[in-house]
Amino acid sequence: MGLNRKLRYGMVGGGPGSFIGGVHRKAAALDGEMDLVAGAFSSSPEKSRQQGEELKLDPARVYGSYEEMAEKEAALPEGERIDFVSIVTPNFNHYAIAKTFIEHGFHVVCDKPMTTTLEDAEALRDLVKKHDVVFALTHNYTGYPLVKHARHMVANGDIGTVRKIVVEYSQGWLATPLEDSGNKQAEWRTNPKLAGAGALGDIGSHAENLAQYITGLEMESMCADVSSMVPGRNIDDDANLLIHYEGGARGILHCSQISVGQENNLRIRVYGTTASLEWHQEDPNELIVRYLDRPLEVLKRGNAYLSDVAVHNTRLPSGHPEAFFEAFANIYRNAGRTMVAKITGEDPGPFDTDFPTVDDGVRGVHFILTALESGRQQGWIDASYNG
Amino acid sequence: MGLNRKLRYGMVGGGPGSFIGGVHRKAAALDGEMDLVAGAFSSSPEKSRQQGEELKLDPARVYGSYEEMAEKEAALPEGERIDFVSIVTPNFNHYAIAKTFIEHGFHVVCDKPMTTTLEDAEALRDLVKKHDVVFALTHNYTGYPLVKHARHMVANGDIGTVRKIVVEYSQGWLATPLEDSGNKQAEWRTNPKLAGAGALGDIGSHAENLAQYITGLEMESMCADVSSMVPGRNIDDDANLLIHYEGGARGILHCSQISVGQENNLRIRVYGTTASLEWHQEDPNELIVRYLDRPLEVLKRGNAYLSDVAVHNTRLPSGHPEAFFEAFANIYRNAGRTMVAKITGEDPGPFDTDFPTVDDGVRGVHFILTALESGRQQGWIDASYNG
Amino acid sequence: MGLNRKLRYGMVGGGPGSFIGGVHRKAAALDGEMDLVAGAFSSSPEKSRQQGEELKLDPARVYGSYEEMAEKEAALPEGERIDFVSIVTPNFNHYAIAKTFIEHGFHVVCDKPMTTTLEDAEALRDLVKKHDVVFALTHNYTGYPLVKHARHMVANGDIGTVRKIVVEYSQGWLATPLEDSGNKQAEWRTNPKLAGAGALGDIGSHAENLAQYITGLEMESMCADVSSMVPGRNIDDDANLLIHYEGGARGILHCSQISVGQENNLRIRVYGTTASLEWHQEDPNELIVRYLDRPLEVLKRGNAYLSDVAVHNTRLPSGHPEAFFEAFANIYRNAGRTMVAKITGEDPGPFDTDFPTVDDGVRGVHFILTALESGRQQGWIDASYNG
Amino acid sequence: MGLNRKLRYGMVGGGPGSFIGGVHRKAAALDGEMDLVAGAFSSSPEKSRQQGEELKLDPARVYGSYEEMAEKEAALPEGERIDFVSIVTPNFNHYAIAKTFIEHGFHVVCDKPMTTTLEDAEALRDLVKKHDVVFALTHNYTGYPLVKHARHMVANGDIGTVRKIVVEYSQGWLATPLEDSGNKQAEWRTNPKLAGAGALGDIGSHAENLAQYITGLEMESMCADVSSMVPGRNIDDDANLLIHYEGGARGILHCSQISVGQENNLRIRVYGTTASLEWHQEDPNELIVRYLDRPLEVLKRGNAYLSDVAVHNTRLPSGHPEAFFEAFANIYRNAGRTMVAKITGEDPGPFDTDFPTVDDGVRGVHFILTALESGRQQGWIDASYNG
Repeated sequence: MGLNRKLRYGMVGGGPGSFIGGVHRKAAALDGEMDLVAGAFSSSPEKSRQQGEELKLDPARVYGSYEEMAEKEAALPEGERIDFVSIVTPNFNHYAIAKTFIEHGFHVVCDKPMTTTLEDAEALRDLVKKHDVVFALTHNYTGYPLVKHARHMVANGDIGTVRKIVVEYSQGWLATPLEDSGNKQAEWRTNPKLAGAGALGDIGSHAENLAQYITGLEMESMCADVSSMVPGRNIDDDANLLIHYEGGARGILHCSQISVGQENNLRIRVYGTTASLEWHQEDPNELIVRYLDRPLEVLKRGNAYLSDVAVHNTRLPSGHPEAFFEAFANIYRNAGRTMVAKITGEDPGPFDTDFPTVDDGVRGVHFILTALESGRQQGWIDASYNG
Repeated sequence: MGLNRKLRYGMVGGGPGSFIGGVHRKAAALDGEMDLVAGAFSSSPEKSRQQGEELKLDPARVYGSYEEMAEKEAALPEGERIDFVSIVTPNFNHYAIAKTFIEHGFHVVCDKPMTTTLEDAEALRDLVKKHDVVFALTHNYTGYPLVKHARHMVANGDIGTVRKIVVEYSQGWLATPLEDSGNKQAEWRTNPKLAGAGALGDIGSHAENLAQYITGLEMESMCADVSSMVPGRNIDDDANLLIHYEGGARGILHCSQISVGQENNLRIRVYGTTASLEWHQEDPNELIVRYLDRPLEVLKRGNAYLSDVAVHNTRLPSGHPEAFFEAFANIYRNAGRTMVAKITGEDPGPFDTDFPTVDDGVRGVHFILTALESGRQQGWIDASYNG
Repeated sequence: MGLNRKLRYGMVGGGPGSFIGGVHRKAAALDGEMDLVAGAFSSSPEKSRQQGEELKLDPARVYGSYEEMAEKEAALPEGERIDFVSIVTPNFNHYAIAKTFIEHGFHVVCDKPMTTTLEDAEALRDLVKKHDVVFALTHNYTGYPLVKHARHMVANGDIGTVRKIVVEYSQGWLATPLEDSGNKQAEWRTNPKLAGAGALGDIGSHAENLAQYITGLEMESMCADVSSMVPGRNIDDDANLLIHYEGGARGILHCSQISVGQENNLRIRVYGTTASLEWHQEDPNELIVRYLDRPLEVLKRGNAYLSDVAVHNTRLPSGHPEAFFEAFANIYRNAGRTMVAKITGEDPGPFDTDFPTVDDGVRGVHFILTALESGRQQGWIDASYNG
Repeated sequence: MGLNRKLRYGMVGGGPGSFIGGVHRKAAALDGEMDLVAGAFSSSPEKSRQQGEELKLDPARVYGSYEEMAEKEAALPEGERIDFVSIVTPNFNHYAIAKTFIEHGFHVVCDKPMTTTLEDAEALRDLVKKHDVVFALTHNYTGYPLVKHARHMVANGDIGTVRKIVVEYSQGWLATPLEDSGNKQAEWRTNPKLAGAGALGDIGSHAENLAQYITGLEMESMCADVSSMVPGRNIDDDANLLIHYEGGARGILHCSQISVGQENNLRIRVYGTTASLEWHQEDPNELIVRYLDRPLEVLKRGNAYLSDVAVHNTRLPSGHPEAFFEAFANIYRNAGRTMVAKITGEDPGPFDTDFPTVDDGVRGVHFILTALESGRQQGWIDASYNG
C-alpha cells in the first residue's frame, strides 16, 4: 500500500450505551490500518465529550454535532483531517449524515439498513456516484471468508444451476415486550419512526443480502406473511417469505425476533443441480457442501484448499476460530484499502473492493419495503427492482 | 395382555423389489408380539408366491390377489386366520384394499398417504367407524419417543402458547430424473396416477402430520408455492408453504425431493411464548429445548426425566440409540395391543391407542389437495377442514 | 439360503427384570429369519415359566434349568429342536452353559465378556474347534455398518499406516453407589464374583474389540491406571490405558462408569499417515474421515459410495437412521446364516462370517486381565497374547 | 481507568514471516486501549526496519536489537516511552529478553512456553517479584469467557468434587516432515535447541494450563508415553499421559501434532461427583454441562445466566460469536488494565488480574520437563512441583 500513514476516521453515533458503535470501533482497530481520531458520538454534546474522553481522543476533535464535525474536519489540512466517517446512528438519519459527509468529500462506512425510504436510498446512491467517494455498508455477514468462498463456488459453477434458496435469520430477544422495560436497543428498534421496519429491516435485510451475495440472483416476485406477534408492538417482529428468483429458482426467507431461545441464527442453504451449500453464522468457520453421490464435505476456514478470496479475508490458521469481529473487520479493511487506493491513485488489490456498497443498500431498502407491502396485500407481488 | 397367542397378520404388497414392505415386516417383528402368516405380495401371483417362499410362509396362505386373501382368510377359524392386514401398495389402491378387508372384518395397518382423493379418504373413515375396526396409518415419524415427549410438553403448557412452527422435510434423491433410469421407487412415486401427489404426498404429508401431532393445531389458511423442478417431471418435487394456524400461530412448511445431498431431513421447530422445541429425524434421540433466559437443554431418549408416554415407547437405555425401525415398530406394537384389547374386550393400556388413525389420514389427504390447489391459484386459500 | 424353514433357538437367562435378554430377542427377531422356541430363562423354574408365558412359548419347551434344556432339546428330532442357544446370563457362568450346549452339538450366541478367566476362555475356544460349532460373541458395536466400513478402509490402505488409536467408552450410570439401592443391573455388574471385572469387563472390552476390529492391530504392551472411584465399591469403575501396538502405533483406551452425564459414549479415532477416521456410537450413522489436505468428509450409512460389507449390513436408505438394535441384529443374522450354511453344507455368503467369534472372546478376556494386572503393578507390562 | 492516555508497548520478534507476532498485535489492538509504538522485530536490523515501516511506526523507534530497544526506550521520558514489552520470539530466548526488559523496569507480555529450562523459569519468577512488574504469559485459551465460567463453576462447587479430567490437544499439521520443506514455523518448532520441546511444549503446555486453570488441581504423579512419530524428527510430536492429581482425581492428557486432519482440537472434560463440564476450543462459545439426572445443558457465551467473570471477558451479545482473537485480547486487556492500576496506584478492577502469570509459566515448564523425563523412564514418576 502506498500511504505512509494509517487512515484516519471519525464516528457519528456510538456514544454511551450504544452497542454497535463499539463493534465498529473494534472492527476498525483490529488490523492496525486505521485510527479513530474524531467523533460526534451523540446528539448530546456532553455525552459526545464523555465518549471522546473514554476513547482518549483529542478533545478538540470531539464535536457536538455531526454537521460541526463535517465542517471542521473538512477545514483541516489533508493528512490530518479524517479520511472517512463511520455512521452508526439509528436508521432514520443515516441519509442526512451520509449526505453531509459525502458533500464534504469524505468516504463513508454506514450501518445498515441504509435508509428508511427508497427515495433516500436512491438519492444517496446518486450522491456517491457524483462525488466519487467510497461507500461501504456494514452487511457484516458477507464479510465471513466462507461466505465469500460460497459465492466463489456458485460463480464457478461448482453447484450447477441454483434451484432453491432457504435462508433464515431467527432471534428470540424480542419475544417479550422488552421495549417497555427501558432497553434502549429494543426501544428504537421497535419504533417505526426510528427504525423504519422491525425484523425485516434489522435482520431480514441481512438474510436478503447474504442470499444475493452468494448466488447473485435477483428476486422477481414474493409473497410475504408479516406479523407483530407480541401484543402492543407496532412493528414487524416475524416475517416469512416465499420468493421467485430470476431463472426459476425458488426461495424461502424467514426472519423472526420472537423465536424464543434463538440467539443470532442466520443460516443459508443454496441447492444447485449438482451440489448444495450450507452455512451458519453461529458456526462460521465451516461450510457444508453436499453432492449428488459423494460424501458430504465440511470445508473449514484457513485451509489451503479454499479460494484466494477466502484466504484474503482470513487472519488465522485453521482450527483457530475467527468470528463476528473478524468478518466485520474485513469490511473496514477492504473498504479502507480501497480508500487508500483512491487517495494514492493506485489500483486496489484484487479482493479489496469486495465489500457491500451503496447499490446493496438500495437493493436492501427496496426488499424491505416490498416485503412490507406484500404482507399488507397478503399475496404475491412483483419484487424486481429496476432502479 | 389377555391373548394367549401372538397376533397374526397378512400383507398386501411388499413383493420382490419393494422397499416399504420389508420395513413394515421388520417393524412388526421387532417386539415378538405378532407373526406374518399370509400375504398377497404382488399383483403377479408368481411374484407373490416367490416372496412367500422367501419369507418361509405356508404356501397355502400366499395368495394371488388381495380379494382372494380377504375371502379365504375370513373363512378360516378364529385363532387361525389373520387378525389384521398390512397394506403397503402404491397409494392409489389403498382405498380399495382397505375397504375389502374392513368389510371382511379385519383390522388394518395402512401406509400413507391414505388415499389419493378426499372422497376415498372420507369413505374409508366412515367404513372404519361403521365396522368398528382398528385402523392405523403409518405416519411413522410420530412414533419416535421424543416426538411424543414434545407433544406432551406442548399439551402440558411447557412452552406457553405456540406462536410459530417451522417444519421441513427435504430430500435430494429425485434431484435428477431418476424415474427415467428404471428405478421402481422413483417410477411410481413420480407418476401422478399411482401416487396422486409427489413431494407433498410422500413427505409433505409427514411434515403436516408431525406438526399437527406435536401442537394439536389445525390450519386455517395457506399459501403454497408448488414446483416441478426437474425438466420433464409432471408431479411436484418441491413445495413451500406459508400457513396460518388457529389461534394466530404462523407456520412455514417446506418439502423437497430436489435438495441435493439431503437424505431424510425432517426437522421441526415449535416456538412458544416461553420456550421452544426442536427435533430432527436424522438425530432422533435428542430433543432441544430453548428457554427465554435459561441455558438450552438437550433432552435425550431413555432418561428418567422424560414423560411416561416417552418411556412407554422406548426399548433401550439412554445412549443406546433407537431409530427408524423402533419408531415404526411403536405404531405396530401400539396398534396391535389396541387390537388385542378389542379382541379380548379389555381396555387398552394408557398409551396403547397413541398411533395415527383414519382421521389423521383424512386430514393428510385434505392437506395435500389443498396445497396443490393453492399452488395452482398462486395465493392464499382456506385450509380448514370441516369434514 | 437353502433351509426351507426359519432357524430355531433357545435362550438361557433373560428372565423377568433382565435387560440384555430382551435386547437379544428383539435383535434376533428383526429380520424374521429365526424364531425363539425354547428357554431356561432363570435359575428359578417359576420365573422361567412366567417368562415363557409372556413370550407365548410352548410351555413344554420352557425349562427349569439349562442342563435340562440342553438334554431335552438334543433329544428332539432335527427340524424341531433348537439350532442354537443364546446365552445372556451374568458373565461368571457363560463358560459352563456354553460348554454344555456345545457338547450337545448346538451352535452358540453368547454375551460378552466371554468368561471371567483366561483358562475358561481358552477351554471354550478348544471346545468350539473340537465340536465344529458356530460361536458368536455379541460385541455388538462392531455390527454397525460404518464400523465395518472403517475396517474396510484401514485394510484397503485408505488411511495409510496406523499411527495412533484413541478409543474411549464413558458412561455415568455408576457415578453413585447405585448397587446399594436395589438396582439389579448395578448389583451383579459391580460384584467381582459375578462380573469378574467392572468397567474394564463391561465396556472396556467393547473398546478393545472395536479398536482391534477396525485396525487389525494386536497390543504389545500397556500401562493401565485402574480405579474404584465410588467409595465402598470393590471393582474397577474407571480405567485409563496407554498402549503400544505392534508396528509402533500408540494408543489411548479409557473407559469409565463414573463420568457423570455420559450415556453410552463409545468413540474411536484412528489416525493413519494419510488420513484419519472417527466414529461415535451415539451417532452411528456417520463416519468422519479427515485428510492431510482435503476437506473433511462425513460418510453416511446407506449411500452407494460405501463398501459392499457396509451395504450387506444395512437395511434402510440413507437418512433413515439405523441404530443399536440393527447393529446387534447383524450379529444374529450373519451368525444365523453361517449356521444355515453349516446345516445345509453350502458356503456362507461373502460377508456372513463377519461376526465376533470365540477368538475375539479369548483376546477380550486376556485384555481385561492384563489391564487389571497392569493397574495392580502401576507400570508398563507385556500385553501380547500368544495363546 | 485513571490514565488519560492509551498504554504504549513495544514488540520483540514478530518480523516478516512471523505468525504469532501478528496475532499479538491484533489482540492488543482490538480494544483500543494500547498502541504499538516501538519494536525490535527481528535479529536482522533490516527486517526489523521493514516490519516497522509496514506497521507505519516512527522509524526512530524501530530498533536493531532488543538490547538497544530496552536501553533507548528506558531513556525516554515517562509518558512517551513504552509501558511494556511484548515478547514473541522462539522459546529459547524468552528468558534473556524478559530479563533485560524487567531489569529496565518494563512490564512484560510473553509468549509461551515461558522458557526452555526450569532454572530460567524460576529465575524469571524471582526477577518479576523483585522488580514488581506485571508479567502476563499468553496461555490464550484460558482467556475464553466460557473457560472462565467453567473455572467459576468448579470453584463454586457446581460439579461437586473433581474425579476425572480428560484433556486433549490434537493437531495434524506436522504429520509429514514439513520442517524439511522450508516451512519456518515447522523448522523452529521441531528444532530442540530453539523450541526445547515439541508437541509437549507447544500445545501440551496449553492443555496442562487449561486443566489447572479450570480445576485448580496440582499434579502428583504422571506416566507419559512420548513419541516422535515422523521419521527423522528429533523432538516429540505425540505424547499421551496418565496423571494423578491431588485429592485423588485421575487424568488423561494427550497432545499430538501428527493427528491427521485435526486442526486445533483442544478439548477438555472435567467430571465431578454431581456434574461434568465439556469445552472445545474450536466451538468456544459453548460450554456443555451434564448432570446426574437432569437434561444436558449447553451454556452459550453472552447470556445473562453466566457468571460476572464471563461477562467481564465478553464483548458481544449471544449468538454473535467471539473466537481466538477475542480470547487472546482478554489477556492483553486484563494485563494492560493491571499495568494501568500499577502506574496510577489505583486498585485493579475485580477481574483485571485474571490472566496467566509467571507462576503459570514456571508450572508449565516443570510440567513439560517432567513429561519428557517420564517418557524417557517409561513409567510413573513424581509430578509435584514444590518450587
